[in-house]
Amino acid sequence: MLLHDASEARPDGWLGALRAVLPQADITVWQAGLPSDCEVALVWNPPQQLFDEQPQLRLIFNLGAGVDQLLALRLPPHAKVLRLQDAGMAVQMAEYVCHALIRWYRELDRYGAQQAQGQWLRHPLQPRADFTVGLLGLGVLGQRVARAVQAFEFPLAGWSRTPRQLDGMRCFAGAAGLDAFLATTRMLVCLLPLTPQTRGLLNHERLSRLPRGSYLINIARGALVVEDALRALLDSGHIAGAALDVMAEEPLPAGHWMWTHPRVVLTPHISGMTRRDAAAAQVAQALQAHAAGAPLPGQVDLARGY
Amino acid sequence: MLLHDASEARPDGWLGALRAVLPQADITVWQAGLPSDCEVALVWNPPQQLFDEQPQLRLIFNLGAGVDQLLALRLPPHAKVLRLQDAGMAVQMAEYVCHALIRWYRELDRYGAQQAQGQWLRHPLQPRADFTVGLLGLGVLGQRVARAVQAFEFPLAGWSRTPRQLDGMRCFAGAAGLDAFLATTRMLVCLLPLTPQTRGLLNHERLSRLPRGSYLINIARGALVVEDALRALLDSGHIAGAALDVMAEEPLPAGHWMWTHPRVVLTPHISGMTRRDAAAAQVAQALQAHAAGAPLPGQVDLARGY
Repeated sequence: MLLHDASEARPDGWLGALRAVLPQADITVWQAGLPSDCEVALVWNPPQQLFDEQPQLRLIFNLGAGVDQLLALRLPPHAKVLRLQDAGMAVQMAEYVCHALIRWYRELDRYGAQQAQGQWLRHPLQPRADFTVGLLGLGVLGQRVARAVQAFEFPLAGWSRTPRQLDGMRCFAGAAGLDAFLATTRMLVCLLPLTPQTRGLLNHERLSRLPRGSYLINIARGALVVEDALRALLDSGHIAGAALDVMAEEPLPAGHWMWTHPRVVLTPHISGMTRRDAAAAQVAQALQAHAAGAPLPGQVDLARGY
Repeated sequence: MLLHDASEARPDGWLGALRAVLPQADITVWQAGLPSDCEVALVWNPPQQLFDEQPQLRLIFNLGAGVDQLLALRLPPHAKVLRLQDAGMAVQMAEYVCHALIRWYRELDRYGAQQAQGQWLRHPLQPRADFTVGLLGLGVLGQRVARAVQAFEFPLAGWSRTPRQLDGMRCFAGAAGLDAFLATTRMLVCLLPLTPQTRGLLNHERLSRLPRGSYLINIARGALVVEDALRALLDSGHIAGAALDVMAEEPLPAGHWMWTHPRVVLTPHISGMTRRDAAAAQVAQALQAHAAGAPLPGQVDLARGY
């Protein structure tokens, strides 16, 4: 199999993890201009050249959950695309969301400022019933985040493209349900895949449906949000704050307004980092399924885009 | 019944909550020098004078979970003491602990400093298996905190005075088990009641049993920790940081070293704030049990001290 990870200068970490679960596998690290007869590729942010030079590929594993960048390329005509379904990311995303949620709900930044001023002052707790957490996206990751948020007894709402019924959650679906979902949400957690349908979904009109004083957490893809609209709503106070792990352009350019906006907490796309051992285990499992002619776990519907 | 809350200038909040669940009750707000024939008192940090003037009291409800300050007073000879068992505090404590835990484990202060410097840099995640969360105290609150921590898949250890078996947790007990418990713990969460046996329990010797680089969260009582010992171990780096919601003296005096120690995050005793509606419901339930001669929920064992 062919291996390429644009985010890593050296492939040693991946090679070790893959050899631990696939000791017999013949693993080739991709080099530009060197053809191969590999039918399986493991990739993260590959260049178009890789696919142009390897038309024989049949299985392409995306070494992350989001395939939007991969699907923007021209892929070999007979290739199936698979994505990681969890690989240790879901619990990390649950952590990230719950941290941001509690930090905001419990006013911990305010208490931090008080410590810096040597001030001992308690503030009444806002009613939990008024803080509905709304999960935009109810896939594997969204459901894992929901389970963690439930540990803190917040009212929970969820929105998905197609209708779902999940325990302990008010479920909304489709274009028709989006406005009602947003109107009920005080803490909006964005967990959607980026597709032609979801790009720019959170524009000024839709973000304005959130109740005044709402908070946004985006751990999915930056381009789901129209960033200028978010800025205007943060400036007006309609959106009281945002925790952003993803941006339309990454790394975030120097001088971008998000770096210094007083209502933005940002992190460099660390909310869900792929754990190599878990990813390698998913690859091994999918190869077994492929050999047996069974359904492939994590196979991407290319028309749907995730 | 007699009502006194030293932390509130006006009793209106308590009166409203109590009348909602006990519409028939005759509630007298305590005044110094005015005797009453009340047999039931609801108190928070009352003065000794209250009990000296009301020897007829039979039931004393402590409007919080910790009774250490109440039991330091001379109480009427025939009074039973009850304490709140949860009253909305447990979920808040679970929030506080999980927030501090994730903030530390995920290095979110480091990422915050990077944002301030406009720096985009990702750091590898430390193995979760190396971060055992150790709960010192496994009562109602400790078990609720455990349930929330489990949502994030950290290894869990617990210590209690008397042996317990709890799911998903390595349990240690008694004086003999304390050192082994501390040696296995990377994130120590202090949830013990303050009694003559636990005062100063976390002294220099015991805190030194924690692995180097451990983190301390104290949401119980400040006097459980020998604060000078904690300071020395923070200065040496043996303890890498602490989130402290309670101190030996509260409000923390101006100029105290904790205000400005770079490894201390402190809050003004807000980790678990009594919710009046839930507290009033527990009072009503206990009065029913008392009238029926049934066991009293939350009754304090005066010899044991909690």
